Amino acid sequence: MTAVAYEYSDEVKGMREGLASFVRQEVIGRHEKYAHILENDRKCFAEDGRYSPEAAAIIREVRMASAKAGYYAMCAPAEFGGLEMGNVAHFAAWERIARMCGGKYWLGYFAIGHWAMGPSPVLRKVTQLARDEMLPGIMSGEKSMCFGLSEPGAGSDATMIKTRATPDGDGWRLNGGKIWTTNSPLADYVIVFAVTDPERAKMRKGGISAFLIPVTASGFSLQQIVRIWGSIGGNEAVLHFDDIRIEPHQLVGELHNGFSIAMLGVNLGRIYNSARSIGMARWALEQALDYVKIRETFGKPIAEYQGVSFPLAEAAMQLHAAHLMSLNVAQLLDRGLPARKELSMTKCFSVQAAAKAIDTVIQVHGAIGVTNEMYFTEAYFGARTANIADGSNEILKRTIVKQMLEGDTEI
Amino acid sequence: MTAVAYEYSDEVKGMREGLASFVRQEVIGRHEKYAHILENDRKCFAEDGRYSPEAAAIIREVRMASAKAGYYAMCAPAEFGGLEMGNVAHFAAWERIARMCGGKYWLGYFAIGHWAMGPSPVLRKVTQLARDEMLPGIMSGEKSMCFGLSEPGAGSDATMIKTRATPDGDGWRLNGGKIWTTNSPLADYVIVFAVTDPERAKMRKGGISAFLIPVTASGFSLQQIVRIWGSIGGNEAVLHFDDIRIEPHQLVGELHNGFSIAMLGVNLGRIYNSARSIGMARWALEQALDYVKIRETFGKPIAEYQGVSFPLAEAAMQLHAAHLMSLNVAQLLDRGLPARKELSMTKCFSVQAAAKAIDTVIQVHGAIGVTNEMYFTEAYFGARTANIADGSNEILKRTIVKQMLEGDTEI
Amino acid sequence: MTAVAYEYSDEVKGMREGLASFVRQEVIGRHEKYAHILENDRKCFAEDGRYSPEAAAIIREVRMASAKAGYYAMCAPAEFGGLEMGNVAHFAAWERIARMCGGKYWLGYFAIGHWAMGPSPVLRKVTQLARDEMLPGIMSGEKSMCFGLSEPGAGSDATMIKTRATPDGDGWRLNGGKIWTTNSPLADYVIVFAVTDPERAKMRKGGISAFLIPVTASGFSLQQIVRIWGSIGGNEAVLHFDDIRIEPHQLVGELHNGFSIAMLGVNLGRIYNSARSIGMARWALEQALDYVKIRETFGKPIAEYQGVSFPLAEAAMQLHAAHLMSLNVAQLLDRGLPARKELSMTKCFSVQAAAKAIDTVIQVHGAIGVTNEMYFTEAYFGARTANIADGSNEILKRTIVKQMLEGDTEI
Amino acid sequence: MTAVAYEYSDEVKGMREGLASFVRQEVIGRHEKYAHILENDRKCFAEDGRYSPEAAAIIREVRMASAKAGYYAMCAPAEFGGLEMGNVAHFAAWERIARMCGGKYWLGYFAIGHWAMGPSPVLRKVTQLARDEMLPGIMSGEKSMCFGLSEPGAGSDATMIKTRATPDGDGWRLNGGKIWTTNSPLADYVIVFAVTDPERAKMRKGGISAFLIPVTASGFSLQQIVRIWGSIGGNEAVLHFDDIRIEPHQLVGELHNGFSIAMLGVNLGRIYNSARSIGMARWALEQALDYVKIRETFGKPIAEYQGVSFPLAEAAMQLHAAHLMSLNVAQLLDRGLPARKELSMTKCFSVQAAAKAIDTVIQVHGAIGVTNEMYFTEAYFGARTANIADGSNEILKRTIVKQMLEGDTEI
Repeated sequence: MTAVAYEYSDEVKGMREGLASFVRQEVIGRHEKYAHILENDRKCFAEDGRYSPEAAAIIREVRMASAKAGYYAMCAPAEFGGLEMGNVAHFAAWERIARMCGGKYWLGYFAIGHWAMGPSPVLRKVTQLARDEMLPGIMSGEKSMCFGLSEPGAGSDATMIKTRATPDGDGWRLNGGKIWTTNSPLADYVIVFAVTDPERAKMRKGGISAFLIPVTASGFSLQQIVRIWGSIGGNEAVLHFDDIRIEPHQLVGELHNGFSIAMLGVNLGRIYNSARSIGMARWALEQALDYVKIRETFGKPIAEYQGVSFPLAEAAMQLHAAHLMSLNVAQLLDRGLPARKELSMTKCFSVQAAAKAIDTVIQVHGAIGVTNEMYFTEAYFGARTANIADGSNEILKRTIVKQMLEGDTEI
Repeated sequence: MTAVAYEYSDEVKGMREGLASFVRQEVIGRHEKYAHILENDRKCFAEDGRYSPEAAAIIREVRMASAKAGYYAMCAPAEFGGLEMGNVAHFAAWERIARMCGGKYWLGYFAIGHWAMGPSPVLRKVTQLARDEMLPGIMSGEKSMCFGLSEPGAGSDATMIKTRATPDGDGWRLNGGKIWTTNSPLADYVIVFAVTDPERAKMRKGGISAFLIPVTASGFSLQQIVRIWGSIGGNEAVLHFDDIRIEPHQLVGELHNGFSIAMLGVNLGRIYNSARSIGMARWALEQALDYVKIRETFGKPIAEYQGVSFPLAEAAMQLHAAHLMSLNVAQLLDRGLPARKELSMTKCFSVQAAAKAIDTVIQVHGAIGVTNEMYFTEAYFGARTANIADGSNEILKRTIVKQMLEGDTEI
Repeated sequence: MTAVAYEYSDEVKGMREGLASFVRQEVIGRHEKYAHILENDRKCFAEDGRYSPEAAAIIREVRMASAKAGYYAMCAPAEFGGLEMGNVAHFAAWERIARMCGGKYWLGYFAIGHWAMGPSPVLRKVTQLARDEMLPGIMSGEKSMCFGLSEPGAGSDATMIKTRATPDGDGWRLNGGKIWTTNSPLADYVIVFAVTDPERAKMRKGGISAFLIPVTASGFSLQQIVRIWGSIGGNEAVLHFDDIRIEPHQLVGELHNGFSIAMLGVNLGRIYNSARSIGMARWALEQALDYVKIRETFGKPIAEYQGVSFPLAEAAMQLHAAHLMSLNVAQLLDRGLPARKELSMTKCFSVQAAAKAIDTVIQVHGAIGVTNEMYFTEAYFGARTANIADGSNEILKRTIVKQMLEGDTEI
Repeated sequence: MTAVAYEYSDEVKGMREGLASFVRQEVIGRHEKYAHILENDRKCFAEDGRYSPEAAAIIREVRMASAKAGYYAMCAPAEFGGLEMGNVAHFAAWERIARMCGGKYWLGYFAIGHWAMGPSPVLRKVTQLARDEMLPGIMSGEKSMCFGLSEPGAGSDATMIKTRATPDGDGWRLNGGKIWTTNSPLADYVIVFAVTDPERAKMRKGGISAFLIPVTASGFSLQQIVRIWGSIGGNEAVLHFDDIRIEPHQLVGELHNGFSIAMLGVNLGRIYNSARSIGMARWALEQALDYVKIRETFGKPIAEYQGVSFPLAEAAMQLHAAHLMSLNVAQLLDRGLPARKELSMTKCFSVQAAAKAIDTVIQVHGAIGVTNEMYFTEAYFGARTANIADGSNEILKRTIVKQMLEGDTEI
C-alpha cells in the first residue's frame, strides 16, 4: 500500500522500473556470477589496496552495460547524449538501486554516473578540445573520472587549498597533492582544483581554478590507497602532483573561478547521499521485519517483544520522514529554487536516520547481525560515512542555522 | 522562502488566509481585551476548577464569532451547513491557528469546532429528532458537546468500559461514569458510550452503544474537574451517571455498534494533534530565533554558540519532517486511503518533535524560558500531553509494527 | 539489597535515619494536616503570588521544628551552633528528603537550611554586629534570607551586574534591582551583590561587594513575584532598590571582593540540585514500578510490555549512575579537592537523568500521569528547572570541556 | 587530577603499574616489531580466515610472556599458581590495557587469561586426570582453550542447545556443533556443553553437561571462521562434532549440571566487557582532545566550536559514570553479593557509552576518523559488538526490570 502521496511522473516511473530490471539482471546477476571475486576481499583488491584488475574490469563492465541500457548518463546534459534528468529522478533512481543492492551488491553503486565520476553537467565546463578527447570514453562508461578537491586540513573550508598551478608559458605547472579523492584508483582523468591567484584565494574571493589532468600525465602519482573501516582495499586515494605540465585546453571553466565547478555537483551529491542511505536502510529494515517473525527466544518469535519491535517502528518512522524530506527538496530544486536549508536538513536527517536504522537492524539480529554474511555492516559503513562526507552533519547544521537566523524561518 | 513543495489548493489557501485574519481580530484581539481574566487563573477558573462564568462566556463568544465568520463548522457535513473540508484543510487550519496563538492565546483552540466538541461528521449519526433539537445551537457555536468514552482502566483498550445502559421500556437506564471527558465542564451535551450487550462486549464483538445525553438530565453530575500540570482549573472532568433515563431518539448510530462513532473522529483527532503540536512548536522556535540574536553572554550573542544554535537547527529539522509527514498523510486520507501506519507515524513523530523543540526553546531562553510570561510552558504542556492523548506513542508504535509485520512495508 | 558499595559513615547514617523520622512526623504529618491549604493554590498563595500568610507560617513552623530537632543548621559552622556537615552528608540528607517527599510534600524542601536561605558558611563573612542581630533568628529558623545575585542579562556571566552601591559617608547608597531571587518573598534579609568599583568590575577583576539588607529597609521593594510553570504563585521575585542606605556593618566579606561570597555556596548548591533531582526521580520511579504491576491493558499488566518496562530499566540505570557520581564527587569535595569537572559532570548528568526519568514515569502512567493528584508534574518542574538553574547544562559542559582541554583528562 | 574517590588497594595499584610496564614493553613493543604482519590483514590471516601461523605464534608469545611476568593467570585459583584476584582487580587490569592499546595494539587483548580462554576458576571443575594433562600448558600460556556454548538459535536462551552426548560404555559419544566459539581457531581444548538428559533439558531443569575436548579429537572439525565487520579473518568459528568419543575423565563439573560451569565466568565476562569498552573509549577520547586543539576550520581550532566540544563533554560524562558504575559493582561482587541488577546496569550502560563515545571521536575527526590509520573503527567494532555479546542490552534490561519488579528497587 502506498505510503507516499507524491507520485513520480510517468517518465520517472518508467525509468525506475527499467532501472530495476537492469539492476536485477546486469548488476545483481553479474555480482552473483563473480561472487568469488567480489565477495572475497583478497581477490577483489590488489596488495596495494586498489581494486584488482579483475574487479576493475567487472566494474567497467557494469558502467558500460548501464550506458548501453541508457541509465549511466542519467544526469548528463542532453547535448552530450545524457538524459538530463532532475533531482527527483536522481533520488528515485538511487533510492531504488540502494533498496535492491543494500550492503551486498555493491556493484550497483557504479550503475549510474555519479556526478564526480561519470557523465554530468560538469562536462559543459570542459573545453571543446578536451571534450572531443574524453567524451566518448566517459559517455560509454569505458573511462571514468574523479574530483581532486580535498586536501589535508581543507575539507569544508576549501579556501585552505595548497595545491598550486603556476603560469608556464601558455599553460601552467601543477604541484601539490590531494587526499580522499574518490574513484581516483579507477579513474582515467582527474579534475584538480588548484590555486592560481594566491592573493584572491587568501581573501576568499576566487583565485582557484580547475584543470582536467589525465592520470597518465608525467608527474602524476597515486601515492596511497586510503583504507577505511578496516578494509584491506578502497576506492579513495592520496594523489601527488610533481610539476605536471598543463596545456591551455585543460582548463575547466573560468580561470580563477574554478570553485564554482565544485559546487555544480553539491546538490546532486547530497540527493545521492540521502537516496543511497534511505534505500540501504530500507533494504536492511525489510530483512529485519522478516527475521523477527522467525527467530524465537523464550518460546516466542522476537517480533512479540516490544524491546525488539519498537525500535523497528522507530526506524521506519524516521525513514519515512527522510523519504518525504528528500522528495520534497528534490521537487524544490527541480523548480530552480536554491533550497539550501531544506537540502541541508534532508541530507543531515537522512544519513542519521539511516545509520541509526541499520544499527537497529544489526542489534535486532544479535550476533549474526555483525557477520559478513549479512552485509549489514557494509550498509552501516556507507550510511555512517555519509554523516561525514559531502558536508558533515555539523557543517549542515551550521548552514541551517545561518539561514534561519537570516530570516528564512519557513519549515 | 517556501520550504514545502506541496501547495495547498486555492480553496485551502483562501480559507487559511481568512482564518488568519479572523484569529488576529476575533481571537487575539479578544484575548488581549480580556487578558485580565484569561491570563489570571484566579479569575479564569472558579473555585471548583471549572472555567469561571466570565471565561466560559468569552469562549462561547469565540465559538459564535467563528461560526458567523464561517470557520467554526469547517469539518461538519455540508448538509448541515458545514464546509465539509478534508484532512489537508483541517491540518492547514489548525497549524495556522497554533503557529499564531502558541501557548499564549489559548482561546484560539476554540476557534474551530473540534470533532468531539462541535459540529462534525458525528452529527450524521444522530436521530432526526435529536438533530432538530441540538443542531442550531451546535452549528452557531452557542452550545457545545463532548465525548464520554474513557473510563478508569479503559484508555486504549475500550473494551473495558463498565458504564451500562439497561433496557427500560422503549428506552434505557444509564448508570456508571466517565473520566477525562474533555470539554465536559463547558458542554451542553455528552455522547456517552455504554455497554448494551455485555456478552458481545466481553468477546470484543460490539455490544456498546452511544447515546446523546443533555447535561441537564436528571441523574447527571460532574463530580470533579481533572486538573493537570499543576493548574487550578481545567476543561476535563469526571462524570457520574445515576440511573439516567434515555429516550429512544437519544441513541446515536446503531444499537450495539456505537463504537464505530468513536472511530469517526480518530483521523481528524490525530491530524489535529499533529497540526497543533507543530504549529505551537514553530511559534516557540520563531521566538527563540529572535531571542538568541539579542541575548548576550561572555560578550557575544548566544546565537554564536553552537551549543545553543545546533539544538535549534535540530528542532527545525524535526519540525520540517513532521510538517511534511502531516501533509503527506492528510492527502492520503483525503484520497480515501486508510493510511493507518502513516497516520500513526505522523502523530507519534510530530508530538515528540514538538515537545522536544519547545523544550529546546525553553532551555535556550534560560530561566526566563520557564516563566509564565513567555507561555512556553503552556505550549510544552500541550505538546507533551499529546504524547499520551488520542493514542499514546506506545499504542501508535504498536500499530506501526503490526502493519509492517503484516507486510505493509512501504514507507 | 544494597546497590551501592560506598557506605555512609555511622554519623551520616544516624543523621539520615533521624532526618527520615523527622520528615515523616514533622513534615509529612504537618503537610497532611494542612493539606487544605498547601494543596490548594488559591489558599497557598495570595493574590499577588506570594505565599499566603497561612502558608508562610507553616513553612516557618517547619524550619523551626527542624532547627529544634537539629537538622536545620546542618551546613552551618559549628561555631554558630551548626553541624558543619560536609558534602556527602549534604547529599545524603537531601536525597533522603526528596525520595520521601517527591513532588508532593514540598514542605520538605524547607527542612534544611539551604545555603542561600538559612544558616550556612556565609555567616562567617558577616560582621559581628550584623551577626549579633541576625544570628538567633536565622539559626532558630524563625527568620530566613536570600541571595540577590541574578539580574536581567546577568545569569552565568555575573560581570554584567548593574546594581550599584556608591559611597555615602561611612557607608553606601544602593540602587538597582535583582530578578530570580529565590526565597525573597519569605526572606527577612537579602544579601545583595552590587558594583562598588566599576572599573575593576568591567575588567572582571573584582569590584563587586556584598551587603546584607533587611527587607524592611527604606527603599527596598519586592516588585513582582516571578511565576513559573503556569503556577499562580511562587517563591522567586523581582526586587527593586531605591537609594537604600547601607551602614558599614552591613558589608559582607571584603569590599570589592564580594563575588567570592557567591561562590561559597556553589558546591553545596550543585550537590543539592543533584540530590534533590535524584531523590525525586526515585520517588517517582518507585511509584511507576508499583503501578505497572496492577495496571492492565489488553489482558495483562503493562509491566509485561517491554515498551513500558524497558524505559523504566533505562531510568533506573541512569539514576544509579547519577547516584554514584554524586557520592563520588561529594567525597572528593570533602577531601578538599576542587573537583570542578566532576561536579559539573555530576550536576549536568543528574538533572538530565532525573527529568528524563520522571518524564518516563509520567508516560508510563498515561493520562493519569499528568494529573495534579499524582504530583509527578511538580517533580518534573523541579528536575527540569534544575537543568537551567545554578549552572545550566550548557554552562557545565563548557566547564567540563575547558578542564579537559587543559589536560585534566582523568575521568 | 583524580576524578574518582575510590582508591585501588596497594596490591591492585602495584599490579596495575607492573601491568602497564609489561604492556608497554612486551605488548606494544612486540606489536610494533611485528607491525608488518599484525597490521596487514593479508599476512595476519590465512586464506581460510584463521590467524596465520606467524600471527598465531606472536599471540602465543604474548600469552607466554605475560604468564612469565605473572599477569596471565590473574584470575586463576591460587592452588594452580594463579593470583586469584577479584573483580576490582580484573576491572583495573583490563581498563588499563584497553586505555593503552585502544583499537590499535590488539595483541593487548591476549595479555590476560580471559576466563573462557585461559587459566580461570573453571579449572577447579576439571578432573584431576585432565588437569594433570592440560594445566602446565594452560598456565604457561603455551596452550589455550575456548567455550563451546552458543548454537544457532541458542544465544541467551541456552535451553535450546541441540548438541548431544549419548552414553557409550563408561563414556559418551558427542554429536552436534557450535557457532560463535571465540578463540576456537587458536584453542587446543574446547569445553563443550551438550545435552545428556533430554527430558530435564526440556523442562529447564539441568540435563546439560560440560566436557573437555581436545581439538585433535577424532571427529572434531572447525568448519568455518565467522568473519565480522567486513574483516577477512576472525577468531570465532563454527565447530562440528561427529561422533567424538568422550572418556569419563573429560567430564567437567557434575553430570547433568554442566550449565553452572557456563555461569562461572558470567561476572568476569561482564566486568571484562565493561572495562575493555571504557578503556578503549578513553583511549579514543584522549586522542580527540588533542586533535581538536590543532585541527582548524574557518580560522580557529575546532575545539572552539561547541558543536564539536559539547559532544566530547557528553562522552566524558558518560564514561565517567560508566567507570564509577564498574568500580561499584566490582566491589559488590568482591564482597560476595550477587549484584545481578547492578552488573546488568553497568555492562549495559558501559558498552553503550563507549560505542557512542568512540562514534563521537570518529565524527570529531571527520573523514580521517574512519581511516584504518586511526584505529578508531577497530575500537568501535569492539565496543559495538559488546552491545550484543555476553548478554545483549535487551537481555540485560530484561534482567534489570525483573529484579526491580520483584522489589529490589535500591539503585
